[in-house]
Amino acid sequence: MGKNLTKRADDYSKWYNDLVIKADLAENSGVRGCMVIKPYGFAIWEKMQAGLDNMFKETGHQNAYFPLFIPKSYLSKEASHVEGFAKECAVVTHYRLKNAEDGSGIIVDEDAKLEEELIVRPTSETIIWDTYRRWIQSYRDLPLLINQWANVVRWEMRTRLFLRTTEFLWQEGHTAHATREEAIDEAELILKIYADFAEEFMAVPVIKGTKTESERFAGAVETYCIEALMQDGKALQAGTSHFLGQNFAKAFDVKFATKKGDQQYVWATSWGVSTRLMGALIMTHSDDNGLVLPPKLAPIHVVIIPIYKGLEQLEAISEKVAPLVKSLKEKGISVKYDNRDTHKPGFKFNEYELKGVPIRIAIGQRDLENGTVELARRDTLEKRTIPAESAENEVIQLLDEIQTRLYEKAKDYRTTHTTEVDTYDEFKKVIEEKGGFISAHWDGTSATEDKIKNETKATIRCIPIEEEKTEGKCMVTGQPSAQRVLFARAY
Amino acid sequence: MGKNLTKRADDYSKWYNDLVIKADLAENSGVRGCMVIKPYGFAIWEKMQAGLDNMFKETGHQNAYFPLFIPKSYLSKEASHVEGFAKECAVVTHYRLKNAEDGSGIIVDEDAKLEEELIVRPTSETIIWDTYRRWIQSYRDLPLLINQWANVVRWEMRTRLFLRTTEFLWQEGHTAHATREEAIDEAELILKIYADFAEEFMAVPVIKGTKTESERFAGAVETYCIEALMQDGKALQAGTSHFLGQNFAKAFDVKFATKKGDQQYVWATSWGVSTRLMGALIMTHSDDNGLVLPPKLAPIHVVIIPIYKGLEQLEAISEKVAPLVKSLKEKGISVKYDNRDTHKPGFKFNEYELKGVPIRIAIGQRDLENGTVELARRDTLEKRTIPAESAENEVIQLLDEIQTRLYEKAKDYRTTHTTEVDTYDEFKKVIEEKGGFISAHWDGTSATEDKIKNETKATIRCIPIEEEKTEGKCMVTGQPSAQRVLFARAY
Repeated sequence: MGKNLTKRADDYSKWYNDLVIKADLAENSGVRGCMVIKPYGFAIWEKMQAGLDNMFKETGHQNAYFPLFIPKSYLSKEASHVEGFAKECAVVTHYRLKNAEDGSGIIVDEDAKLEEELIVRPTSETIIWDTYRRWIQSYRDLPLLINQWANVVRWEMRTRLFLRTTEFLWQEGHTAHATREEAIDEAELILKIYADFAEEFMAVPVIKGTKTESERFAGAVETYCIEALMQDGKALQAGTSHFLGQNFAKAFDVKFATKKGDQQYVWATSWGVSTRLMGALIMTHSDDNGLVLPPKLAPIHVVIIPIYKGLEQLEAISEKVAPLVKSLKEKGISVKYDNRDTHKPGFKFNEYELKGVPIRIAIGQRDLENGTVELARRDTLEKRTIPAESAENEVIQLLDEIQTRLYEKAKDYRTTHTTEVDTYDEFKKVIEEKGGFISAHWDGTSATEDKIKNETKATIRCIPIEEEKTEGKCMVTGQPSAQRVLFARAY
Repeated sequence: MGKNLTKRADDYSKWYNDLVIKADLAENSGVRGCMVIKPYGFAIWEKMQAGLDNMFKETGHQNAYFPLFIPKSYLSKEASHVEGFAKECAVVTHYRLKNAEDGSGIIVDEDAKLEEELIVRPTSETIIWDTYRRWIQSYRDLPLLINQWANVVRWEMRTRLFLRTTEFLWQEGHTAHATREEAIDEAELILKIYADFAEEFMAVPVIKGTKTESERFAGAVETYCIEALMQDGKALQAGTSHFLGQNFAKAFDVKFATKKGDQQYVWATSWGVSTRLMGALIMTHSDDNGLVLPPKLAPIHVVIIPIYKGLEQLEAISEKVAPLVKSLKEKGISVKYDNRDTHKPGFKFNEYELKGVPIRIAIGQRDLENGTVELARRDTLEKRTIPAESAENEVIQLLDEIQTRLYEKAKDYRTTHTTEVDTYDEFKKVIEEKGGFISAHWDGTSATEDKIKNETKATIRCIPIEEEKTEGKCMVTGQPSAQRVLFARAY
C-alpha cells in the first residue's frame, strides 16, 4: 500500500513506533524522553479529555490548578510516598542564567541557587494536601472533589511514545472525605468512570481489579485499576484510582470538625489517567494498514474524496457533495471534503487509512452518472457502492456499527487470550507460547509474586473484583487462595 | 455587608488581593510566586479557554503539545531572544534524589547531574522551531498554524495573583508562512481575535496597537498588542501577537522549497494570552461588593435562593422553582438552586454577590402567594419584583443587557480617562493627578521614551493602529511626530 509500515507479525514494537510517527500522532523531541504530540494526535487526546472531563463534572468534580513545582521537603512528609516518587525526577536547583565571562554562551548563575530545591511534580498529592490543610476546617467543607489536567515529569530511562515518556499529560483527581466509606465509594466510582470511558469511548474492554501490595501506588491503602489487553498479548494498565486512607491527611495535618464538634483526620483518594491511553487506543484496534479509530474519538469521522479529471468534473462533484457535507455536519459528524489538487486520490486513500478515519466516501464521474457513491469502512476495509441519497443514513448507522464492532472484536480477542491454568508448568508454557491474561491461583504473598515475576516476567495485573470468587490452591506453593488473580506480561 | 473587603478608594491594590482570595479565585501556594487557581477561578479560566480555542479553530489553527523543558543551548540560538528570556528562569540541573547517608532526609544525587541543563519553558519559540525544522520541507507544508495550551515559568521577584506569577497558564500560537505578507496578516488576524474576545466575552474594551522597539518581544520584528485600562487608571497589556520575520527560521535553519523549487527561510509569528486576563477581567468590572462577571464568562449565570421557614415552605418553593431551573438549563443557562440548609439567605446573598453571579432570584412565602419572584442584578445591584411566569424571559434578556452594559460602562470609563496632552508639563500633571491613558506626540526615539519612563513611571503602551494619524511635535523634544501614541502607568 506504499505506507512502509512494519507488519505486526514481524515486529509488533516497531509496528507501533512506525504507526505513531506515520499517522502523525507524536514524535520524539530534542529533549531526551520528552515527546511532541502532533496536531492529529492531540486532537484525539482532546476528545478523550472532553469525554472524561464531562464524566467528572457530571459526578460533581471541579477542575483547579496547583503548582508545577513541589518543594523537596514536601515529598518527605509521607513516608512511603517519598520512596516511590522522590527518586527519578527533575530537580530545579537554580533560578537564573547569565552570560559566561569568557563569552562562550550562557551558564547557570551560581549566585542564584535555591535554598530548597524544587521538584517538577511527578504527581501532586503533596502540594495539594498542603493546600487542603487551608481549605478544610469543617464537615461543611467536605467532600472536596477536585481534578486537575496537567503535565507531570518522571525521569524515565527507557521511553516509548505515549507509553512511557519523561513528561506526560494527565488528569489527577484528589478528593477529601469525612468518612472511610465515602472515600472508598469515591475511588470505586472513579474506577467505574474509567472503565465506562475505556469501553464506551475507546472501545477498549477492561478488567476492573485491585493491585497487590507490591504494585500499589506509593502512599495508598488500596489501588484500583483497569487493565486492558493489547494485540501482542501484553497487558496495559489504563488507569488507577487510589484509596489513600488518612495517610496524606496525617502527613499534612488535615483535620476537620465533625458535626459533633470533634477533630478528625480527613479520608482521601487520588486517581489518574494519562496520555498512555493513546498507546492503549492505538495498540488495541490498529492493523497493518495503520491506525483504526473508534468513531467517538476520531477527529474526522468521514472523509469524502472526489475522483475527477479536470476542473469541470471536480465542480460537478463538489456541487453534489455539498448538501451531504452540510447535513452531516449539522448532525455533529465531523466531515472532511478533501479536494486538494496537489495529491492524487490513491495518495489520499492511503493517508486516511493510515490515520484511521472510520469512513471514506469516494465519488467519481460514473457515480455522478449513476447517482451513487462508494462507501468504505476503515475497520473491515469493506467497500460498497450505495445510492447517493442514502449516504447520510448509512454513515450515521455505520459509525455506530463500527464503534460497537471494534469493542466486540477487542473483547473477543481478550476472551480467546485469557487462559485459566492450575499448574505453574502450564503457566510458564502459556505465558511463553500464547501470552495474554492468565487466570490462576496465588497464595497472596509477595515472595511468590516476585518468584513468578523473576522467572516469567509476568506480573499480577490485578485481583479482579467483578469475577466470581472460587477458592483454590496457589499454583506455585499449593497454599490456599481465595480467588483467581490475573497475570500477564505488561507494558 | 460583612465581606470585609477593602474599598477600592482606600487601597486599590489591597482591594484586588482581598477580592481574588475572598471570591475563591486563587491563592498563593507554598511555592514562592506560584499560585493555586481555585475551582471557581478555574471555571472562569475554562470559559476563557473555550471561547478562545473556538476562535482559533474556526480560523484554521490546530492544537499540539511541545516539551516543558528546553535545552539551554536552544535558548542561545536566537541572539535577541536569549537576552530577553534566558535570565530569570527555572533551571533543572539534576534528575535524581537520594536518601542522605546520615538519615537526615532526601538530597540531590550529585551523580545524576545533567550534561546540559534544561530550562523550564518561559516561552516555546526555540523548542518549537527546532521541531518545525523537521516538519517543514515544502510550500505544501505551509502555512503551519499551531497553538498550545501550556504552563510556563518566568522567575519573578515580585508576584501578584494572576497579574504576575512565576508559573502561569497560557496559550502560545506559533505559525510558519511562505511569505512575509502572510505572516503579518496572521499576526494581525490574531490581534483581531484577541481584541474581539476581550470585548465580546470579557466586556473589556481594548486599544489595538504596536509596541515601541524597547517594549517589543525578544526576537520579534513587530509586536502587536491590545491594551486595556483598569479602574485605578493603570493600563494592562492583555495580549500580544508577534511578527517574528525570519529570525527563528534562520536561528533554527528552517527552509522550505518554493513552488519554483528554490529554498527560502520561513516567516513566523507567535502570540499569547495568559491567566493575566483574569486580572484584567477582575479589575475592569468588579466593585466594593466583590466580583462582577460578564455573563459570557460567568460559571453560574443565575442563582436561585429560597427564603423559607420550615421544610414545608422549602418544598413548596422547590416545586415552584423546578420548571424554571429546567427550562433555563435547556437554553444553555447555568443555574444554581441553592437550597443548602446550613446557611441563611443573607449569607448566600453575600456569597454570590462576592462571587459576581450576574443574576440572583429570591423566592419566599409571600412570592409564592403572589406568584412573583425577586430579581436582582449584580452589576447595578438593582432589585425588582416580577411575575414568576416572566422570570425566564427576563433572565434571558437581562443576561444580554448586563453583558452590553458592562462593556459600555468600561468604555465610558476609558473615554473619560483618556487625555490628549501637548506639553510635557501637562503630561506630568495628568499622569500624577488623573492617571489613565494619555495621548501625546513622541519623537520616536528610545532616549525620549526612557526619559519619560524614568521621570514619570509612564510607558508607551502602544502606537495605536486604528486611530486617525495626525502629525505633531514631540511633547518633550519638539521633534516631529507622525502620530500620537498612548502612554500610561501600567501593570
